[in-house]
Amino acid sequence: MRQSLLFSRTQRKFPQNETFINTKLLIRAGFIDKLSAGVFNFLPLGFRVLKKIEKIIREEMEKIGGQEILMPALHPKENWQTTGRWDEVKELFKLKAGKKEFVLGPTHEEIITPLAKKIIKSYKDLPLYIFQIQEKFRNEKRAKSGLLRQREFLMKDLYSFHTSKEDLDSFYEKVKEAYFKIFERVEIREKTYLTFASGGTFSKFSHEFQTECSAGEDTIFVCKNCKQAINKEIKNKIRNCPNCNGGSFEQKKAIEVGNIFKLGEKFSKPFKLTFLDKDGKEKFVQMGCYGIGLGRLMATVVEIFHDQKGIIWPKEISPFQVHLIPLGKEKRIKETAERIYNELIKEKIEVLYDDREKTPGEKFVDCDLIGISLRMVLSEKTLDKKSVEFKERKTGNLKLVKIPKAIDFIKNFYAQ
Amino acid sequence: MRQSLLFSRTQRKFPQNETFINTKLLIRAGFIDKLSAGVFNFLPLGFRVLKKIEKIIREEMEKIGGQEILMPALHPKENWQTTGRWDEVKELFKLKAGKKEFVLGPTHEEIITPLAKKIIKSYKDLPLYIFQIQEKFRNEKRAKSGLLRQREFLMKDLYSFHTSKEDLDSFYEKVKEAYFKIFERVEIREKTYLTFASGGTFSKFSHEFQTECSAGEDTIFVCKNCKQAINKEIKNKIRNCPNCNGGSFEQKKAIEVGNIFKLGEKFSKPFKLTFLDKDGKEKFVQMGCYGIGLGRLMATVVEIFHDQKGIIWPKEISPFQVHLIPLGKEKRIKETAERIYNELIKEKIEVLYDDREKTPGEKFVDCDLIGISLRMVLSEKTLDKKSVEFKERKTGNLKLVKIPKAIDFIKNFYAQ
Repeated sequence: MRQSLLFSRTQRKFPQNETFINTKLLIRAGFIDKLSAGVFNFLPLGFRVLKKIEKIIREEMEKIGGQEILMPALHPKENWQTTGRWDEVKELFKLKAGKKEFVLGPTHEEIITPLAKKIIKSYKDLPLYIFQIQEKFRNEKRAKSGLLRQREFLMKDLYSFHTSKEDLDSFYEKVKEAYFKIFERVEIREKTYLTFASGGTFSKFSHEFQTECSAGEDTIFVCKNCKQAINKEIKNKIRNCPNCNGGSFEQKKAIEVGNIFKLGEKFSKPFKLTFLDKDGKEKFVQMGCYGIGLGRLMATVVEIFHDQKGIIWPKEISPFQVHLIPLGKEKRIKETAERIYNELIKEKIEVLYDDREKTPGEKFVDCDLIGISLRMVLSEKTLDKKSVEFKERKTGNLKLVKIPKAIDFIKNFYAQ
Repeated sequence: MRQSLLFSRTQRKFPQNETFINTKLLIRAGFIDKLSAGVFNFLPLGFRVLKKIEKIIREEMEKIGGQEILMPALHPKENWQTTGRWDEVKELFKLKAGKKEFVLGPTHEEIITPLAKKIIKSYKDLPLYIFQIQEKFRNEKRAKSGLLRQREFLMKDLYSFHTSKEDLDSFYEKVKEAYFKIFERVEIREKTYLTFASGGTFSKFSHEFQTECSAGEDTIFVCKNCKQAINKEIKNKIRNCPNCNGGSFEQKKAIEVGNIFKLGEKFSKPFKLTFLDKDGKEKFVQMGCYGIGLGRLMATVVEIFHDQKGIIWPKEISPFQVHLIPLGKEKRIKETAERIYNELIKEKIEVLYDDREKTPGEKFVDCDLIGISLRMVLSEKTLDKKSVEFKERKTGNLKLVKIPKAIDFIKNFYAQ
């Protein structure tokens, strides 16, 4: 992609009225644009990151047997009346089509459960793991947390269906692992704590994944012994770590990046989602649900990986793989840059090519702000040595590499 | 994918209350599920087709320079007031968040134009081609046309921005070609007519892409001379073909599968989207917009490609590449089928494997109903010849192929 054509502009200053550095940076660097409180446009740079996050989540969901579907945002009122949540949930957007009333879905238990009822008849039809990546809506009265609390947000929601609690328990553990794998791939695994949260009627605890972060709106208490955490609500109820029984905690600020929940029969019952078991008896299906917000994950990554100059993208979700920056107006530089640019495209390396007529200073400022993992500079100095200069955004490490070796260098960088 | 695990069930009978064969077939074959009038769930089979259509559209949009973004469904009232469409457009879903009012976007001119205004300053910033693939909402009072007229629907909308009418004209021709390329890839090109439609203030005509189909809700008049068409509205206004001046038409029923429109300054003016031209003068940006509904395209394809037994998917959007069907309960059949299934996965061939305990008759009925382009049968008879039997869904052509050659056969089939 030629930067001169990119539908995005970096801004000199941070936007006003944003609390969080992640949203400030993403707006200033031209990844997103704020349309209204809690409502954002994702520009090409932001869209690319979103798609990469989506790809990681999709791969990890498919690895544990997830089947992808797409459910609508418009939910009939009756579905939400069946569970009582039409009146219970405060943040529902409600609207009418003709005489029919709808909810804009903030979650999809009310849709997936009756849908599963059409398919599940016998124990032979179970287990099932169904997910979607889809826009959710939440009527936040005050949406002041930027990307961390949107009124409309892309979410992965997985629902699992089981013959027994034991089977649910065992899949629940698999999802935990899949979630940690996702957080590992976006490089926040080390800062992310499995956190005990309240569990509702059917399970003593649910779990949140909380990423340690000074700007976080949540407070967690990390067990000094086992490194699992409990949230504030649980802390008020119990003294010891529910995992290892340890009694010593460290308080931290954190952002919730995912949650998993054993629903048990909470939704099976109102929708009468049953199956015929091996013993010939009709039983309620055991359910679980598992969520990750894509925009929130993106925001959390930026909240953690940035410096004074801008964003520092983890490799696997860097909007491009390499930022190619020619410096100087010499003809041979421009020609070599064009040649390298075309070569990179041919090799299917994702490249942002700064072909703009800007000063080196301006180019470097934008480059650091945007935060692509690898910078590739071509200047008189490097060209005299038949080389390009690579700089890793994360470490600042510089490396001069002969031009014919440049593509291998990039491929190796991303293979590590 | 093992069919025994597939989140989907075929039905013996067509659903009641559906008018169109496409929606009847897609429901019966387990591709979609109707949640409410005009509101559908896409099950794994339908979701796969949708993703393949999305891929084709994305590729063709990128080939003409399109940059992908994602705009929200929640649009502030003020944006729609700026153009007067808050009062004009009847099918808007309107809702409130706190004191703020929103529209659920049925189209995105009201969002993309002010967004482009933040980026376009000079003629150097133009042209720009921006698209998204995103859920649209339309408050249809009566939504009785199944997938053809949804209240919530996935759409590709492209917007183009130009310095001059001439540049808009030239890109408009490129989009025409890209659209025909898309229709070619889903194999409806031959039946799809470029159709003159009314153009609004800034252009004499816009264009619809109308696919000939007896069940279509639109009427078009195809010029016998040049094979371009005019829609009913235009037919009432003019006598001769606006393309070749021919005066002889053939009347046909058709489904609108796409539309392209020269907006000119219609939206640039209310939003004051201007640029500084080479001559130093401030001018209004010239705009175009170009839409394709993904679900509607899927429905049209099914409306055209089906027979008494079921759907006949065009190769490039077949939900799977091959439907592997072992017949009989012999151990050697089951073992060979498992081996072939694993081999296909290793070769990255998309396979639906009918591992269910069903009779051959039941399996064949479902297979024809689902309509995967290529069927691969393994039976005692074929195994005695160390072979599998392929059947092309479209032609019914049968071919016995030695097992070690099967993968090459599939690859060749899809390479043609």
